[in-house]
Amino acid sequence: MRTVRTISELRQLLAASRRARASVGLVATMGALHEGHLSLLHAARADCDLVVMSLFVNPTQFSPEEDLAAYPRNEARDAQLAERAGVDLLFAPPVEEIYPPGFATRVVVAGEISERLEGAQRGAQHFEGVATVVTKLLSIVAPDAAYFGQKDAQQVLVVKRLVSDLAIPTRIVVCPTVREADGLARSSRNAYLTPADRARAIGIVRALDRTAALISDGERDSAVAAGIARNELAASGIEPDYLDIVDPETFTSVAEIDAPVLVAVAAQVGGARLIDNVIADPAGAKPTLPA
Amino acid sequence: MRTVRTISELRQLLAASRRARASVGLVATMGALHEGHLSLLHAARADCDLVVMSLFVNPTQFSPEEDLAAYPRNEARDAQLAERAGVDLLFAPPVEEIYPPGFATRVVVAGEISERLEGAQRGAQHFEGVATVVTKLLSIVAPDAAYFGQKDAQQVLVVKRLVSDLAIPTRIVVCPTVREADGLARSSRNAYLTPADRARAIGIVRALDRTAALISDGERDSAVAAGIARNELAASGIEPDYLDIVDPETFTSVAEIDAPVLVAVAAQVGGARLIDNVIADPAGAKPTLPA
Repeated sequence: MRTVRTISELRQLLAASRRARASVGLVATMGALHEGHLSLLHAARADCDLVVMSLFVNPTQFSPEEDLAAYPRNEARDAQLAERAGVDLLFAPPVEEIYPPGFATRVVVAGEISERLEGAQRGAQHFEGVATVVTKLLSIVAPDAAYFGQKDAQQVLVVKRLVSDLAIPTRIVVCPTVREADGLARSSRNAYLTPADRARAIGIVRALDRTAALISDGERDSAVAAGIARNELAASGIEPDYLDIVDPETFTSVAEIDAPVLVAVAAQVGGARLIDNVIADPAGAKPTLPA
Repeated sequence: MRTVRTISELRQLLAASRRARASVGLVATMGALHEGHLSLLHAARADCDLVVMSLFVNPTQFSPEEDLAAYPRNEARDAQLAERAGVDLLFAPPVEEIYPPGFATRVVVAGEISERLEGAQRGAQHFEGVATVVTKLLSIVAPDAAYFGQKDAQQVLVVKRLVSDLAIPTRIVVCPTVREADGLARSSRNAYLTPADRARAIGIVRALDRTAALISDGERDSAVAAGIARNELAASGIEPDYLDIVDPETFTSVAEIDAPVLVAVAAQVGGARLIDNVIADPAGAKPTLPA
């Protein structure tokens, strides 16, 4: 694996691969790699001749009150994990390489897919920051495929939208959420949990699980289903930032459930803000969470 | 020359050229071709193996009060001129090919380069529309070089900014403004001028010419230079939308002229809104306007 810090060096290396008609896969990360990232790397490794992983803690997607400074950083460990997962090129630029002085461009995905839930909680700059950095990374790497995790369901939709709207010739591959043995979604922010909070956090999974089961068992009223989920969270002492049952393609709220829905939740649990989601199918298909 | 209406067909044709390592040049137009466009096509033809011209009257860069519906359209004539200028591929998509239902992405270049002058006059949507469609066209065609005219100086800066910020691997080539024999800048909107307004319009050139000469002769006070320009416009009965002396790289107003400046003007002359500009150099270099 080779570590690269500048756009021009990365482009030079990619040009050689492209001349050899190698297919290129990109996994964009903010580091602090966990099993979720590794599953994306494995998917890219299985599909592509050349796997690029970017490691960039993107400042523009954090709001001033958020954990940018505290965000876990350990490049040496991440590089080791990336190498072991078969990454060919690690692109780890300094902030000025991505945002040089005078930088003035933003990519904005308008509408509910970036305004609701995470957009409402974290502010408009969050998905603008995501959309801008992803557009730039796709422009730099020009991958055939880019791999994202279903845990960040709203981010996935924003990325799919901009890729389609701007006709960026990259296939977006969405990989299932990777979970701990007890079901907690893997997240870099799980590192902020004390043992007591870690135990409490499982309430999120229970809430999603219970709601999905209810919906596949026939519940059509999303207010009822959401109420059950909220009770489950409250039982673990969790007050959600949001808990919503939405259309998986548009993130608009659903009142009557007559097609698969996304049950999405975010909550502060001790020092960690956690998000998770599950697709629930009223036609009774098994939800994607572990039993 | 081949005319193509869909992104996927264009991409297929370009992929074949790219496999043969052909260099690709793009000239993005809204049609109504004049000598200005032809000079861009000639520059692209001289530089590149394959020349793509897009013909798309981009609705999103017009404000509701502007001339979108009336904008001159004559694809058959444009195609003939493009063919004669050596265009290989004419990309003339319908509006839905560029903006399909659900389209939600905007590229925004913040700051004075898109907010002042044309941005202030035509509204924020103008340069957002330009930035978004140019980003999409660059993504579709992935040209080695794209050619723009100096007449649209502010558009050129917005495009250069977003290309640099998003690391789009296209060289932006700026070609000099092409003028009529008497100096009037070629513009598709000149077609709206009655003979009387056509005669009056030359006041714009006289104002720019006089101001540039004054600056190269030693005038350092931009208020004085702008005053002379305004008098010259008034002598032709022209009330400008704006007349400003700005930094050519940032479009911020300049008070004391101690480096090359851009003198930019926009004015409604009868049925046509005309814009023009000239670089004026206090070091005494000859301005780029005809004598």
